[in-house]
Amino acid sequence: MDKLKNKPKEELKLLGKKVTHKLEKKENPYMEFPVRGLSNVSYDKKSKTLKLGDSISKRYFFNVAHSKKFLQTVEVASICKNLLEEGKHASLRDVFYMVKRTIPNTKINLVDEQTETDKAIEDLELITEFSREQLYVNANKMGSVVGKVKILDRGDAINWAKLGSGGWSIPSNVEDIKFEEVKANFVVYMEKQAIWERLHEDRVWEKLNCILVTSQGQTTRGIRRLLQRLCEEFKLPVYVLTDFDPWGFYIYSVIKYGSISLAHMSEKMAISGVKFLGIMADDIDKYGLSKHLIKLNEKDITRLKQMVDYEWFKDNKEWQKEFAAMKKLGSKAEIQALSARGISFISEKYLPEKIKNKDFID
Amino acid sequence: MDKLKNKPKEELKLLGKKVTHKLEKKENPYMEFPVRGLSNVSYDKKSKTLKLGDSISKRYFFNVAHSKKFLQTVEVASICKNLLEEGKHASLRDVFYMVKRTIPNTKINLVDEQTETDKAIEDLELITEFSREQLYVNANKMGSVVGKVKILDRGDAINWAKLGSGGWSIPSNVEDIKFEEVKANFVVYMEKQAIWERLHEDRVWEKLNCILVTSQGQTTRGIRRLLQRLCEEFKLPVYVLTDFDPWGFYIYSVIKYGSISLAHMSEKMAISGVKFLGIMADDIDKYGLSKHLIKLNEKDITRLKQMVDYEWFKDNKEWQKEFAAMKKLGSKAEIQALSARGISFISEKYLPEKIKNKDFID
Repeated sequence: MDKLKNKPKEELKLLGKKVTHKLEKKENPYMEFPVRGLSNVSYDKKSKTLKLGDSISKRYFFNVAHSKKFLQTVEVASICKNLLEEGKHASLRDVFYMVKRTIPNTKINLVDEQTETDKAIEDLELITEFSREQLYVNANKMGSVVGKVKILDRGDAINWAKLGSGGWSIPSNVEDIKFEEVKANFVVYMEKQAIWERLHEDRVWEKLNCILVTSQGQTTRGIRRLLQRLCEEFKLPVYVLTDFDPWGFYIYSVIKYGSISLAHMSEKMAISGVKFLGIMADDIDKYGLSKHLIKLNEKDITRLKQMVDYEWFKDNKEWQKEFAAMKKLGSKAEIQALSARGISFISEKYLPEKIKNKDFID
Repeated sequence: MDKLKNKPKEELKLLGKKVTHKLEKKENPYMEFPVRGLSNVSYDKKSKTLKLGDSISKRYFFNVAHSKKFLQTVEVASICKNLLEEGKHASLRDVFYMVKRTIPNTKINLVDEQTETDKAIEDLELITEFSREQLYVNANKMGSVVGKVKILDRGDAINWAKLGSGGWSIPSNVEDIKFEEVKANFVVYMEKQAIWERLHEDRVWEKLNCILVTSQGQTTRGIRRLLQRLCEEFKLPVYVLTDFDPWGFYIYSVIKYGSISLAHMSEKMAISGVKFLGIMADDIDKYGLSKHLIKLNEKDITRLKQMVDYEWFKDNKEWQKEFAAMKKLGSKAEIQALSARGISFISEKYLPEKIKNKDFID
């Protein structure tokens, strides 16, 4: 465990040694990593995730076009090494302010915008093959969880089933959480806190023996890693519960296949076993939602078209059926529309039925 | 306690009885409540909160212009009564879908937009004098808390000091939380989760013996009520920690004085004893932040002008001094800029010093 914890620091030290070694030999130090960006991102059918391709770029210290970025990456590496040594976590914004200063004897700032340090951290993710969380740079904190799970975190023994109406607040970094006991058969992730509160009040996690996880819209890296750890370490199926709309579908897509901007992290973040438990076209009749359809607006229609064309959905008949049905309906439906059938309809009818009938999309 | 819990239901029943009583007497039923909106909102110097004025509007059942709104309010009252009887909480969106249907024998929908049911809930807050949380309609869930506090919630005994890196996830509704033990001298509320994680990792809540509360930007009603309960029931000072910018100042303003849109709830939400612990103009030199100033943009400048003119800041010399200093600087500063001085500078220097010297604004 301790050895594993030292690995990221060793990788950062190695980077520093390589640079100084080249300099001692009076050679031009360089780093190399895969090109990021759409041109080098593709869908890998085997792993079912978005991946970076083979295009490699080299960055040299003695190169007018490269040297500033080179410096930035080395500086951020040094900051991460210090964080790891001190055992303290920083946010992206913290790292920016820690790097931001004038280069001695010049009028040039080492960085002017946070995007520069953000990119440097991505560089380090590629060079070290550790996630930024493992380099002690945290993403956003968001979301709550409830279920029959006992964990150890920073010396505290925490029972997710005994935390009242609020649940456990998910930290930005879940790498060091130790799972002591997991008594659940599956995980349901939902974007909407209000749905989570509904299911929690109805004690669905107890009745269906599952773990309920929510964010608020955006699925943070911390939440994605938490879902992934539950899926991989405990072989729990993960179901995604969203609206019947292109944005809900995209939330699912990112969790399952990864995202273009984080393609280099797919291996650490994508959960290919995840399934869609949200409202499907057939549910609209089945659960009496036809009076609660909402017309697609122009943005929805554009987004839907993009979904249709995504490489990873192209050969997926089930999903193409959903997209076509939504296009034909010209409408979307919200998960909360189920409340028209009764406040606990989702807890007592929709969810148990869907799960019993394995009525989800892969 | 149980009697108190029945009060909201009794108030809703009373409303129904008044309506049917009028109808039985063949009179025109009506409701009356204060006019909402800017024209009837003013700053009350005595209570130091925004308040509704004396303008009253009457809404009649037999009046073409009123009858639909009248119906909506009665329908939402009936839904709230059912929620209270079932002991289940709904979101605003749930209530909308529960009301949404066609009026029998007509082609008229009872409601078309959620704003209509939202308004009806505000009506009921005014008529019953209970908050919508007490009528079992919840707001958004957001935020985390840590500190030496033990609570009872839904039968669970929860210790806020023993919840690892995540903390307790604050529910949308904190009315029923029972405080068992509060061993803290004050509360610090911050908008940024990243700052909360920093302070928590440095165990500031233990070292300074305080409670740390965060949201992410927006201060939800649940968080405001939590802060208010800690302030009123345990006489704890509440400090607000934000950036040195007009938006940070406004977050403080809403917590302390209430907001125009929720003026009718000021009594239940505003915390007049709250103090500003965020970055002040003098701190920029004192803590070496001058290299990290960010130029005010046009939106910032407009917002700053509005702050200067707010009635509740007009006679406040300390605040006017801050506004003038910001205008003169033409710049704002982020709390995270303190990280330039060291990752734990905020925990080890800034906060302890500010609190020791009582260096905050009222």
